[in-house]
Amino acid sequence: MKTVCLVIEYDGTDFAGWQIQLNGLAVQEVVEAALARVLGEPVRIFSSGRTDAGVHARGMTAHFITDRDLPMSAFREGVNRHLPSGVAIREAAEMPSGFHARFSAVGKWYRYTLYLNPVRSPLLARTSWHLRFPVDEEAMRRAAEDFVGRHDFSAFRSAGCDARTAVREIFSVELLREGDLLHIDFRGEGYLRNMVRIMVGTLVEVGLHRRHPGDVEGLLAVGDRKAAGITAPPQGLCLMRVWYR
Amino acid sequence: MKTVCLVIEYDGTDFAGWQIQLNGLAVQEVVEAALARVLGEPVRIFSSGRTDAGVHARGMTAHFITDRDLPMSAFREGVNRHLPSGVAIREAAEMPSGFHARFSAVGKWYRYTLYLNPVRSPLLARTSWHLRFPVDEEAMRRAAEDFVGRHDFSAFRSAGCDARTAVREIFSVELLREGDLLHIDFRGEGYLRNMVRIMVGTLVEVGLHRRHPGDVEGLLAVGDRKAAGITAPPQGLCLMRVWYR
Repeated sequence: MKTVCLVIEYDGTDFAGWQIQLNGLAVQEVVEAALARVLGEPVRIFSSGRTDAGVHARGMTAHFITDRDLPMSAFREGVNRHLPSGVAIREAAEMPSGFHARFSAVGKWYRYTLYLNPVRSPLLARTSWHLRFPVDEEAMRRAAEDFVGRHDFSAFRSAGCDARTAVREIFSVELLREGDLLHIDFRGEGYLRNMVRIMVGTLVEVGLHRRHPGDVEGLLAVGDRKAAGITAPPQGLCLMRVWYR
Repeated sequence: MKTVCLVIEYDGTDFAGWQIQLNGLAVQEVVEAALARVLGEPVRIFSSGRTDAGVHARGMTAHFITDRDLPMSAFREGVNRHLPSGVAIREAAEMPSGFHARFSAVGKWYRYTLYLNPVRSPLLARTSWHLRFPVDEEAMRRAAEDFVGRHDFSAFRSAGCDARTAVREIFSVELLREGDLLHIDFRGEGYLRNMVRIMVGTLVEVGLHRRHPGDVEGLLAVGDRKAAGITAPPQGLCLMRVWYR
């Protein structure tokens, strides 16, 4: 028996999210179907987490167990031949028995990209949130600092989130400017449902001076979702990487 | 009467090219339709040139003449409201009478983007040509130098090209590396049909050592299309800017 971990990239635009569901095509579904064709038998993959409809990934991870003795290249080049252009296996590696893409993960890097320009950009529309007005980056940086550390993120989870505890550790939040793009990089141990998008929505409100940078501390302390910012749209979000020990 | 010049960005993936034609939706068509809604009357626009199906533009230009006295913002914000997400007016400016987007142009900048990696990238698939093998950039730079200057580009035009003369001036060809991306920037007075894509196809063959860097000189001298390289695929190409005096 082999435990194989895949690193998967996808353009989430045309998918109903990672996880298999009744309405719409899920990334998990097309990966399992392509893998089954290479393995010659049905297979179930276990991911490091889910992403919502429209969210992208450069480095989603998922593992599966098989007794077929195929080389790792079969799970990359071979599987890619059966995947649509919007999904690709970037890496495939054999892992020690007991490895689990979700439970063995020690951290994740998410990037959210803002496009700051008075006019929308067709070439960036699929991968960024367009904001017509300039933002106060310094104020956003100050607010972002307060997310760092171990906190109860109850104010930053969607109503549908079913995690038992809302306590998570954020290692760092960095703002990187690249022309008209502003990337917000979150590195943390794990995230609640919609947590990154609600943190981004709150930071953008700070950037537009609709909210004070000091607000974040109070939001974390009180834990009221309704007091936090809006949920930023999905297309600006990308799961960049999942870390393992 | 006002002469208005538009700068237009589009994601060419879902279009049958710039120019109105029988098969498939053209960018020109959706721009004219959106403009007509703002002007309240049919309008014809004249572009600086055409782009093929799948080719993108950050800075296509087109002009039109109108006797409606609307502010320039109507031709940007107003028209954008009637355009699909894949097309946007980036700028609108009133030009002196007699201005023509094509005949007044003095130069154009095209960028072609290669993605160099053993594995394809779903997030870059729409905007780059994926090459699985590394390329010899130095050899490509040497070959590219020979395109610079005033030459007869008969070897670098498609069979369907109906330009009267094949003589064009290329001001510069630059290769810019950005991680796994290699951008090839062409600046020139004008181009024949498929000229950039055939130059890129030839440069890539040089980069893969299937062809000698010195070949370009001979191709320009002899003018045989069949001796030149393949036509690079459209999705790597983007019209970046059109210059006017």
